[in-house]
Amino acid sequence: MPRTASPVRCQVREPASVDQVVVLGAGFAGLAAARRLAGHPVEVTLVDQHNFTTFQPLLYQVATAGLEPADVAYPVRTIFRHAPNVTFRHGRATAIDTARRAVVLADGCSVPYDQLIVATGAAPAFFGIPGAETHAAALYTLADARRVRNRLLSTLEEVDAHPERFDSGAPVFVVVGGGPTGVETAGALRELLDVSMRRDRLRLDPVRTRVVLVEAGPRLLAGFDPRASAYALDTLRARGVEVRVGDPVAAVASGAVRLASGEELPAAAVVWAGGVTVDGTVAHGVPAGRGAGGRIRVEADLSLAGHPEVFVVGDAAAVPRGTGDRSLCPQLAQVAIQSGDHAARAVLARQAGRAVPPFAYRDKGIMATIGRRAAVAQLRHGLVVRGTLGWVAWLGLHLIELIGFRNRLTVLVNWTWRYLEWPSGPRLIVADIEREPRAGPDAGPEST
Amino acid sequence: MPRTASPVRCQVREPASVDQVVVLGAGFAGLAAARRLAGHPVEVTLVDQHNFTTFQPLLYQVATAGLEPADVAYPVRTIFRHAPNVTFRHGRATAIDTARRAVVLADGCSVPYDQLIVATGAAPAFFGIPGAETHAAALYTLADARRVRNRLLSTLEEVDAHPERFDSGAPVFVVVGGGPTGVETAGALRELLDVSMRRDRLRLDPVRTRVVLVEAGPRLLAGFDPRASAYALDTLRARGVEVRVGDPVAAVASGAVRLASGEELPAAAVVWAGGVTVDGTVAHGVPAGRGAGGRIRVEADLSLAGHPEVFVVGDAAAVPRGTGDRSLCPQLAQVAIQSGDHAARAVLARQAGRAVPPFAYRDKGIMATIGRRAAVAQLRHGLVVRGTLGWVAWLGLHLIELIGFRNRLTVLVNWTWRYLEWPSGPRLIVADIEREPRAGPDAGPEST
Repeated sequence: MPRTASPVRCQVREPASVDQVVVLGAGFAGLAAARRLAGHPVEVTLVDQHNFTTFQPLLYQVATAGLEPADVAYPVRTIFRHAPNVTFRHGRATAIDTARRAVVLADGCSVPYDQLIVATGAAPAFFGIPGAETHAAALYTLADARRVRNRLLSTLEEVDAHPERFDSGAPVFVVVGGGPTGVETAGALRELLDVSMRRDRLRLDPVRTRVVLVEAGPRLLAGFDPRASAYALDTLRARGVEVRVGDPVAAVASGAVRLASGEELPAAAVVWAGGVTVDGTVAHGVPAGRGAGGRIRVEADLSLAGHPEVFVVGDAAAVPRGTGDRSLCPQLAQVAIQSGDHAARAVLARQAGRAVPPFAYRDKGIMATIGRRAAVAQLRHGLVVRGTLGWVAWLGLHLIELIGFRNRLTVLVNWTWRYLEWPSGPRLIVADIEREPRAGPDAGPEST
Repeated sequence: MPRTASPVRCQVREPASVDQVVVLGAGFAGLAAARRLAGHPVEVTLVDQHNFTTFQPLLYQVATAGLEPADVAYPVRTIFRHAPNVTFRHGRATAIDTARRAVVLADGCSVPYDQLIVATGAAPAFFGIPGAETHAAALYTLADARRVRNRLLSTLEEVDAHPERFDSGAPVFVVVGGGPTGVETAGALRELLDVSMRRDRLRLDPVRTRVVLVEAGPRLLAGFDPRASAYALDTLRARGVEVRVGDPVAAVASGAVRLASGEELPAAAVVWAGGVTVDGTVAHGVPAGRGAGGRIRVEADLSLAGHPEVFVVGDAAAVPRGTGDRSLCPQLAQVAIQSGDHAARAVLARQAGRAVPPFAYRDKGIMATIGRRAAVAQLRHGLVVRGTLGWVAWLGLHLIELIGFRNRLTVLVNWTWRYLEWPSGPRLIVADIEREPRAGPDAGPEST
């Protein structure tokens, strides 16, 4: 993307008596911040390279063809239609100039700020494992989910058209990472294979396909209570998922995964849910130390040391749990929402000359679904809910959290339909759409 | 795509006493044929390069961001789940070998047939107009619709981020072709601009944007009654669309369209709905003469002269109206459905040793929508229905025709919502999803 030669007459605001607040990123954290600032005496510019926000907890459903991309994405402009003090700017941030107090965009424009909230998220971590980035399909963005889905469905069509390629062994689908995303993906994938292959009359017995979930650490769902881990392991195995724990991936090649134990897995497709690291594009320029996973270190109020006008929130930040606990929050949607909201409150307090309180995380519980009628929820005080009840809780919570998404109704329709008559959920090989041989028109103005 | 070296052990059928029928293409015509053959004593192989079928009449809604791609696409395998004699084969046909009676696929496999139904559709026609194929975005496939939509929405974001680029003139959107697709696209686009720019608080007054519909012939909707044409012209103009009739496009360049009259239109985006020609990939090998628009000439029963075992149907065929009328049918969904169905009946008749009747088109009427509460329907006996009544008829008919699409319910939800509170329909810049900077994994097996 060539930089436009300056001077570019970029979006210019009228000089205002109120603070100019820039929010970088329209994920859970950035949206929570902008929503909190709406209606208050600040001018907010929300910047994102996509004009939509993504409901990440359900990306694995898109990847395993249970939901459509549009079900988990929503236009940012629509969210702030009735918030005149929040302006959306479609653009990709390339740097933060803390000296000039401006965010630099890829199109050459600068967006000045009085206060800044950085919510740029993370990116998949491959931990330097040879071949992983090249041969595995990560699962963090909507683009990732579409890519995984295309890979899985194309493999099924290949099984049908070319059974001879699988004479020497059934197709194996490897999911790397035993956290919630890996567990949910492996469970949903096993269901997709069992039901899809039978119902769609694909020419290979589902019992001849394998789904292998690989976790480097000693147990699945490491962030959960050990009872939840045991339940996830038992349920996945009962449903036909092979699970390897305590056996890290040593290398990934085209069509194969090698584990540290020496086991070689043939792999028709590899889904990577192995963890995240901070996206470097913007964050590299932020003058601050780094915590685990490359996360940006922040003060107790989530601002940068030496730059009280800059807050870092969500997956990009090493968010302290607060109230005396100096350990870090996990990179979860709840942490992103609460930290984004906190930063916005801090912005308003600072503008009003009030003291900025430290951040304190309120743990509302964590949950993961393993498949139809099987989920595990870990609530406060160590309460663990499993099985159908856990699954109903998971379903209900996610539908409630989709509030604000118009998509809630269509997601409900999709899910209900899928439950009653699945797998009739749409299973389009979406990337097919991009591979049309026709010559395209000029690319859009943003890709030039 | 490199051909796999033969011998490939391709999908092999058991020798059967019944005919092997291959249907090429899973559009309206191919689906109608396969549906008719389901449950009859024939073995059917339905071949398509996509694993989904597309409801083409609503592609313009995807292009103008009223519907999502998944709303107008449905997986082929699901349609034939309960038809054990219909097998789907995901693959791209490259040639028809009428001597060996086999269809050759891009992966090196051959699919033998006793009888063949060719329903490969058409492709946009650019009539050799300089720059058209390069700089205009055609609208015939789902990929096209996504491309047009991305172009339009990216332009709106550009207007917002870089108003200086439009100092010398408002952004102009040019739609080429005054048939139903062009009329529907221009009307929907005008509504998108008027509502979207106001509601989403984009930084350019909608009255400063222009939508220009260009038609080479003397009137819009040339296939309709002149009263319908006049209604469409008046309604589009009343709603703010500029219409040029009798003025063909002479050339298209980046950012500009030149008309035969000499008028130069600046163009932020050009949508091409200028007509179709027969897709050459497969059709070029068919031993038959060509009619208007490159369509393959067929006999009265839709078979090829000299090859009674090969039928050509839908947009690819020069379908005669029949019952004494030697003129050709237009390239419409109704013609595709009826001709596909007829070919399937002919296949069954031929296998049973019965006489194959000639095809006869039953005109059920044609319709086009111009926008909210404005459509025109031309029924039998020249009856023309306009305005709100026409629009309700158009809406009802399209919902009924989506039967078989599970998507019907979600389409209804989308439309109802859009009507009540539009433009809150999803307006994701979908191609954004593909332009993520992240390195992708291996491409799927089919793209190698």
